[in-house]
Amino acid sequence: MTMTIADQTRDDTRLAGADAAPSPTDQDFALPPGGVPEPQRKAVLDKLENYFADLQGRFLGYQTNEDLKLREPMARFLDYHFNNVGDPFEDSHFTLHTRWAERAVLDYYAKLWHGKPRTKVNGEVPKDAYWGYVLTMGSSEGNNYALWNARDYLSGKTLMREPAKDGGAQYVWVQDTAPADNQNAYSPVGFYSHDTHYSVAKALRVLNIPHFYEVGTKLYPYANPLDPGKPWDHEVPSTGGDSGPGSIDVDKLARLVEFFASMGHPVMINLNYGSTFKGAYDDVAGICDRLRPIFARYGLDKRKVRYGRDENGNELVDERTGHWIHVDGALAATYAPFIEKLVDAGEIKPATPLPKFDFRIPEVASIVTSGHKYPGAPWPCGVFMTKANLQMQPPEQPAVIGSPDTTFGGSRNAFSPLVMWHFLAKHSERDQMTMIRTALEVTDHAEKKLKELGGTWEAARTPLALTVRFKQPPPELVHKYSLATIPLKVGHEVLHYAHLYVMPHVTKEMIDALVADLAKTSPVSMPVQRGGADLATYVDGSADTGDIARLALVHVSGSAF
Amino acid sequence: MTMTIADQTRDDTRLAGADAAPSPTDQDFALPPGGVPEPQRKAVLDKLENYFADLQGRFLGYQTNEDLKLREPMARFLDYHFNNVGDPFEDSHFTLHTRWAERAVLDYYAKLWHGKPRTKVNGEVPKDAYWGYVLTMGSSEGNNYALWNARDYLSGKTLMREPAKDGGAQYVWVQDTAPADNQNAYSPVGFYSHDTHYSVAKALRVLNIPHFYEVGTKLYPYANPLDPGKPWDHEVPSTGGDSGPGSIDVDKLARLVEFFASMGHPVMINLNYGSTFKGAYDDVAGICDRLRPIFARYGLDKRKVRYGRDENGNELVDERTGHWIHVDGALAATYAPFIEKLVDAGEIKPATPLPKFDFRIPEVASIVTSGHKYPGAPWPCGVFMTKANLQMQPPEQPAVIGSPDTTFGGSRNAFSPLVMWHFLAKHSERDQMTMIRTALEVTDHAEKKLKELGGTWEAARTPLALTVRFKQPPPELVHKYSLATIPLKVGHEVLHYAHLYVMPHVTKEMIDALVADLAKTSPVSMPVQRGGADLATYVDGSADTGDIARLALVHVSGSAF
Repeated sequence: MTMTIADQTRDDTRLAGADAAPSPTDQDFALPPGGVPEPQRKAVLDKLENYFADLQGRFLGYQTNEDLKLREPMARFLDYHFNNVGDPFEDSHFTLHTRWAERAVLDYYAKLWHGKPRTKVNGEVPKDAYWGYVLTMGSSEGNNYALWNARDYLSGKTLMREPAKDGGAQYVWVQDTAPADNQNAYSPVGFYSHDTHYSVAKALRVLNIPHFYEVGTKLYPYANPLDPGKPWDHEVPSTGGDSGPGSIDVDKLARLVEFFASMGHPVMINLNYGSTFKGAYDDVAGICDRLRPIFARYGLDKRKVRYGRDENGNELVDERTGHWIHVDGALAATYAPFIEKLVDAGEIKPATPLPKFDFRIPEVASIVTSGHKYPGAPWPCGVFMTKANLQMQPPEQPAVIGSPDTTFGGSRNAFSPLVMWHFLAKHSERDQMTMIRTALEVTDHAEKKLKELGGTWEAARTPLALTVRFKQPPPELVHKYSLATIPLKVGHEVLHYAHLYVMPHVTKEMIDALVADLAKTSPVSMPVQRGGADLATYVDGSADTGDIARLALVHVSGSAF
Repeated sequence: MTMTIADQTRDDTRLAGADAAPSPTDQDFALPPGGVPEPQRKAVLDKLENYFADLQGRFLGYQTNEDLKLREPMARFLDYHFNNVGDPFEDSHFTLHTRWAERAVLDYYAKLWHGKPRTKVNGEVPKDAYWGYVLTMGSSEGNNYALWNARDYLSGKTLMREPAKDGGAQYVWVQDTAPADNQNAYSPVGFYSHDTHYSVAKALRVLNIPHFYEVGTKLYPYANPLDPGKPWDHEVPSTGGDSGPGSIDVDKLARLVEFFASMGHPVMINLNYGSTFKGAYDDVAGICDRLRPIFARYGLDKRKVRYGRDENGNELVDERTGHWIHVDGALAATYAPFIEKLVDAGEIKPATPLPKFDFRIPEVASIVTSGHKYPGAPWPCGVFMTKANLQMQPPEQPAVIGSPDTTFGGSRNAFSPLVMWHFLAKHSERDQMTMIRTALEVTDHAEKKLKELGGTWEAARTPLALTVRFKQPPPELVHKYSLATIPLKVGHEVLHYAHLYVMPHVTKEMIDALVADLAKTSPVSMPVQRGGADLATYVDGSADTGDIARLALVHVSGSAF
């Protein structure tokens, strides 16, 4: 059998240096009509594995743990299709499932985030108990699902049960009319900061939720409270802009929220806990303290949403808030509770305290975290969590009656709950405290070493973040250490930065190797473009015409991952 | 080490018979703060695997192939997190990826579905070339993504590039204004049939796309073309209703589409290719033939969408259709091409010809299929495919400039492309022809045997479907064979049906064992409710009030999976 693995078409190998494992190519994986014989399949997969093994040992740029060791315990499950289709707490006829593991993982996170347990009281799950599920697509799915819930909750929609034409009952999706004295009552406005992951802006577009830029520009063009008479900001500014720590500017957020609340709009706010590029923590608790009186002042603390009449002709009314605060904790919501435990135990004393973010704060309506980032998994996964009374369910339906279609998709990855369960089973709380303490120490080490490199590298770190950023090195080092890169605007200049992330697999030795390589070179002075073409300069024209409305700025690069 | 696996809390074991492997329980997977020691972790996973192995041998009710054998070739990749974040055709700094395999899988499906290849002409990918990606969440994600594209394409939105404030360029999402002579020009109306998977109706809710029931009820309450003066149907009727074959009623669809086209609305139609419960094939080619003159009559074949002005002040205009036809081929789009090859080769002669559904039909804008159904995979996955000129990209942007954020989520499962590649590499086209031929023969066998059981079982099969439906057997058999169940309305009666699906792992012996068990019992005479409570009868009240608008009927059970 002669192997027909073709020459390299991409230049990954050259970039990685002559001794690196060769990169697979499109030709390696080509699928002829006759199929690929077994020895050749194996050879291609061997090549891929060698390439992975080579790069994994230096994988520094992305917030994904590569210390998995799942082959031994988990390989056997690759011979089954199993599926958690439907609700985690409802049985299904799809017998090959892992809901037992899923519920254990959810219970674990509910405890970690101070959600109310689902323990039944008088045969019913309490209305304020937690509800959630293990995500198939990772935090992007969770953000989409959370904001979908938020939109429908705030816009006066209710899922209710009516008698069906042919007997029995049916679920109907209904919409209340805004009261005559506030036409904006069911027109929610979205808020997210400049440092927010692009998936949140995308979720708002998918869900057709206008954010404050769109609503402000369209309805209140001269009333921008941050800069009266001037165009609205595209996003809520981050403290100190691109050269700041990456957390949302609380004062500006409060002024924006107050403006739209005063116009009668309900508000939907995305906060970040472990932002993508800088690993920053929005001060969720402080923001809620700040917004609470604003919510109360404009009646957003308690509102009535109508959804029909009962059999006696009485109006059916659901009492809701006019706000939804979602925490995108993709990265940090999974480890921050163990930093808090270390602080409580007096084992570490951070200079900057970590803000609280979880269900202890009454306004927090939903939290998302990723399973494949800090804990680690072969593929994207995560946890979405909310409270049962915020779910899209008939408001008065007894909680013993489950509704099976409660998640975002249909089929759900049932392997992910096993992987997440395995991590939590393998690591005691004490192990998790040690793990994050070590990660913080390695990040301290990286910060120190990178700062020692000197001025041209401009190393910087947000307090307690697991990432250090520095000026972008030449492409061969970006590839060698799989660094993530991002252009940052500092003043009117665009500076090209890279970052490293200290996930549990990262050691001081890996950091030292990078620093030694950086010491031999200098940051790139030119922007490096994707695809080799002029993505930076190509324009269609201008949307400044009477008929065209700008809806949103779309980040398609930079803040990736 | 003493095992502490608790007693059964659920009654799966009793249902499956005394000799069955015991079902895992919530207690088995409980996560104490101290973690779970390795021997106990192993014991729990052993129990789960034994349970899976036991049920897999009789797994008949769902359209997921259980013949995987992926442990040997794929286990090693469980030790890596790898990720195809971003576009399949754009490189990324996330080096641990499988885009080579993903592109091979996409090329394979593009050929199978007669999409135009992405071979560059004068350095550019042709505008009508296929574009797609391997899905992380399965066909639900694909349906969501397709309908999101459809909504924005039809509603006059454009992603364009403007000069950025500080130099360079930025992506902006803009909205055209409807022309004065047709205020409905950018108000698309959605259509899907009664037999459509619930994820499509859910996608319309997520995307805030009104379907014809909502728009008809709100704007044209007395003009229902199917029943003038009567309330609008909730969904496009299926041919022959619940006792029919499950395909969309083409005549009624055409009348509905013509009505909304005549009112100036663009239309978005979901068609099914291998419907969930009956495995039915909508006649995609015949429907497009039927709708083509309607589209032309009302100017939906060609429209101009404005998105700004160029540097010379000329209007920027994108030429688009006013229709989007999406094919949900979750089940059948992956095997039907091989039935066509068998027919073309004269190897089978079906009594009913299989309708064409792919990119040979000019109006087909997007197709989705699942990788975990007929081909088989441990978790949900699949393929989304469209044409490059229908993507949400700046209309005139040179195709050499890639845009990295083109998929639905952020992180993407990179293991799935490997699994899908492995199936296509292992099975030649001839193997695939043999595989579907065998599946059809086994389904013929199941149809014959189940019909021989006699009248009370009421076995029925849609032509060329891989599924046979019959009255619902007692719960112990539903569990033993993992059968899917669904209530069907026949006249005014609700009848409880189950079905089996012949996926490649299903043998005549498995069918015979089921039939032998069915012969010893009778269909259930009472509806079997989920959760043991009164889901069938609980109602909130009625939405029949002046302030409440009904938006959609929500199926939460029945058509599951």
